Amino acid sequence: MEDCVFCNIIKGKIPAAKVYEDDNSITFLDIMPANKGHCLVIPKKHYETMLDIPDDQISNLMKTAKKVAKAISLSVGNGAYNIVMNNGQAAGQIVPHAHIHIIPRFDNDALKLSWSHKKYQAKEMEEFTNNIKKFL
Amino acid sequence: MEDCVFCNIIKGKIPAAKVYEDDNSITFLDIMPANKGHCLVIPKKHYETMLDIPDDQISNLMKTAKKVAKAISLSVGNGAYNIVMNNGQAAGQIVPHAHIHIIPRFDNDALKLSWSHKKYQAKEMEEFTNNIKKFL
Repeated sequence: MEDCVFCNIIKGKIPAAKVYEDDNSITFLDIMPANKGHCLVIPKKHYETMLDIPDDQISNLMKTAKKVAKAISLSVGNGAYNIVMNNGQAAGQIVPHAHIHIIPRFDNDALKLSWSHKKYQAKEMEEFTNNIKKFL
Repeated sequence: MEDCVFCNIIKGKIPAAKVYEDDNSITFLDIMPANKGHCLVIPKKHYETMLDIPDDQISNLMKTAKKVAKAISLSVGNGAYNIVMNNGQAAGQIVPHAHIHIIPRFDNDALKLSWSHKKYQAKEMEEFTNNIKKFL
C-alpha cells in the first residue's frame, strides 16, 4: 500500500536496519525499541492483521520469528524474550501492516508487559467456552 | 513432565475449560484472564520455550492460534486481540511449558500491554544489526 510505512520499508523507500530477509518477510530493528535489539518481523505482502494472513505465511513468519529470537538471544546473551502481535487498534496496533515484535528481556529491566486479572463468575467459563467453540 | 501444570491439564489430571484440541495442541481458557475469553494455546508435548519447539510444531501452534483468535473475535464480537508469548522468567513466563496467549481487546479496556521506548545512540543500530546477523 502506497501510504503504508512498512510497505515503504519493504520497497526501500524508507530506510531500516534490516536484520533478515527471505521471499516472504523482512525483519528489522524497531526504531522505538522496548529494549535494544527489539525486532519486527513483517510479511512482504500487505496484510492488516493476523487473520488476513494465509496459513502458510503465518507458519513462515513464526519460523522466522523463532530464528530471529534465537539470534537476538545469542547476540545479547540472554534467553528471555517476548513475542507480541497486536492486532487491531484496540489491541495497541499502531501500524496497520501485520507485524511480530521480538523483545529481548533482562532481569529487572522494568518493562511492564504483564496484565491485571479478571474473574469469571459461576458458569461464565462454561458460557465463554461454548460460545468460542461455536465459531471453530 | 510430572509436576508441570499444563502437562497435567493435557493428561486430564487438572481440569480446564477446553476450547479446542488437535493432535499437537490444546487450547483452553486462562483461569486468570486479562479479558474474559482469554485463551492459551499449548503444545501437547512439553517444551519450555519457543526455541525448544520444532519448526513444524511452531507452524501448527500459530495456525491454531489464528483459528482460535478468529473464533474469539466472532464470539465476543470484536476484531482486536493480542498474541503474546513470554519466553523465559525475565520475560514474565510463569508456567515453564510454552504457551501462546490470545487476549481479546476492547476500546478503553484499561489493559496496559504497551511499553516505554529506549533510544539508540549514534551507530548503535548498526552495531545491534550486525551482531544479530552474525547469529542468523
